[in-house]
Amino acid sequence: MDRPLVAAVLAGGVGTRLYPASRNHRPKQFLVLGDGEKSLLERTVDRLGFADEVVVVTRADFADAVRETVPGVSTLVEPAGRDTGPALAYATHRIAERFDDSVVLALPSDHHIEGGFASAAQRGARVAAETGALVTFGVEPTRPETGYGYVEPGTDHGAYAEVAAFHEKPDAERARRYVDRGYYWNAGIFAWTHDSFRAAARETPLAPLLDALNAGEPKRGFEAVESVSVDRAVFERADDVVTVPLDVGWDDLGSWDALRRVLPTDADGTVVAGDAEVVSVDAADNVVAGDDVHVSLVGVDDLTVVAYDDRVLVVPTAAAQRVRKLVAKLERRGEF
Amino acid sequence: MDRPLVAAVLAGGVGTRLYPASRNHRPKQFLVLGDGEKSLLERTVDRLGFADEVVVVTRADFADAVRETVPGVSTLVEPAGRDTGPALAYATHRIAERFDDSVVLALPSDHHIEGGFASAAQRGARVAAETGALVTFGVEPTRPETGYGYVEPGTDHGAYAEVAAFHEKPDAERARRYVDRGYYWNAGIFAWTHDSFRAAARETPLAPLLDALNAGEPKRGFEAVESVSVDRAVFERADDVVTVPLDVGWDDLGSWDALRRVLPTDADGTVVAGDAEVVSVDAADNVVAGDDVHVSLVGVDDLTVVAYDDRVLVVPTAAAQRVRKLVAKLERRGEF
Repeated sequence: MDRPLVAAVLAGGVGTRLYPASRNHRPKQFLVLGDGEKSLLERTVDRLGFADEVVVVTRADFADAVRETVPGVSTLVEPAGRDTGPALAYATHRIAERFDDSVVLALPSDHHIEGGFASAAQRGARVAAETGALVTFGVEPTRPETGYGYVEPGTDHGAYAEVAAFHEKPDAERARRYVDRGYYWNAGIFAWTHDSFRAAARETPLAPLLDALNAGEPKRGFEAVESVSVDRAVFERADDVVTVPLDVGWDDLGSWDALRRVLPTDADGTVVAGDAEVVSVDAADNVVAGDDVHVSLVGVDDLTVVAYDDRVLVVPTAAAQRVRKLVAKLERRGEF
Repeated sequence: MDRPLVAAVLAGGVGTRLYPASRNHRPKQFLVLGDGEKSLLERTVDRLGFADEVVVVTRADFADAVRETVPGVSTLVEPAGRDTGPALAYATHRIAERFDDSVVLALPSDHHIEGGFASAAQRGARVAAETGALVTFGVEPTRPETGYGYVEPGTDHGAYAEVAAFHEKPDAERARRYVDRGYYWNAGIFAWTHDSFRAAARETPLAPLLDALNAGEPKRGFEAVESVSVDRAVFERADDVVTVPLDVGWDDLGSWDALRRVLPTDADGTVVAGDAEVVSVDAADNVVAGDDVHVSLVGVDDLTVVAYDDRVLVVPTAAAQRVRKLVAKLERRGEF
């Protein structure tokens, strides 16, 4: 592909279900949760060696942490947190100012990816450039996951398929049906040319933001625009949306149970994230995450124990989604 | 009673089953585990206002902490840790040097006691003075506890009963039988005159220590003597042993499940020791202990979570005795 490929990495969120590792002062993308010593953000940027430029889109409070974590990478600070729709409209606008006919690859900074990301991403960017369509990457499901949205493919064109429909996070029965029918997981990774994106966004709630950006007033634009995901604002409304398979091991590490899937287990079936030291007595199949902490598990199974700073969380791994409810309670108490 | 009453408070142990609150550098008697702001040792000494003198017997590494915790109280440092037998022989010897015809009240520093301790203790001291017997205080059981030893009373003399036998920690069935038969819990609280104690100890493994003490060589005495409890060394061998009822609320706080018995519960049935802050979501009947820590419990019941320093322990409350096994493992790893 001759056109420049610019990656827009989204690093403005917090990742509340990974509390207490993720909190306002230390969001998920800065955590070392996988193998090795690198944070999710570093690993995301490392994976983008094939891009001509990488821009990390973040919020003002995280900007310093981003620059420390991935020095030398461009940053773009959102004037206000308004979800991925406005963030990516802003990134696309800025990239278009600097690169005449670039293709934008938009992706989260906090996902776990194994395998050949570069070739799939470049394939998707090429489809975006050649067809002018908005591209969403689809991951082939390995289980009937209820925590992800699904992409229903339509007419197949070889390198890509038209998108027949997007489906919200399903219940268990529906998830099984989606998997049986060959739907993809919606990985939240996209590619587009800036012309296509801006044309599609014209007909959406993002329109006033585009006008403000064209007038050189991003702050005003963000103040006026509603919080909305790029999926809902643009992809679910646009006519020309296609999906390209992302044939990698992928997990959004959205909640603590994800660690069981992506990290190795020890002889007791224990999974350890961070540099926590774990001693088990009559205990099996637990998940422990923490830094500089020594955790003893006696007589407990299938439990997740997380300790960061002065915060401890104990939850059955199977109930990890309920941490969302805890965080809502902590936010009401002003303790998140 | 005209004779001086001197309390010997034992503060040389660690209390391993309360790990990670209790560790070598911070044994159980220094912990604030009950209501209020005071450590178990402070509360023990506070309770002894009726004594003419209080001596805290401890080991060299804890001596400074004892002096900080209960300033103004005499301390006696054991030359080596040899369990309660040698510690109390030493204390009795030293008290006899200073008080001609004193009665010694010997007691642990790390028990929970509610109610009129003074009158029962003084009654026991009077029995020791008047009969010359060795007195062990017996607590009327409130449940068939398997974690305590039992005292079987013999002939009743009103203010005291002869001791027919001592019984080791029983299994559940035996414990029920002991309770039905009116046996007492052996609270590890004793009274004796120093003449009686030293006469009885003459015929025991403590004899060489007594000789060394008489020769003014406590260090040599401790090096030679075996580790042995005062129960086993003296009380189980002596002829003239009686029991006086200790009619107070008593718990040895030996393991984490004890907190459920002695502390108030909140609306979720949660018991909190120390100044830990606890947030529960779909969680009930848990025990949390810790200082300066914020613990979230999601979807878990009947669990004990303890966090001190960089150490966390998670154990079902019903399995709290198994912490002993954990501590043995930690000691092997050099991590206790």
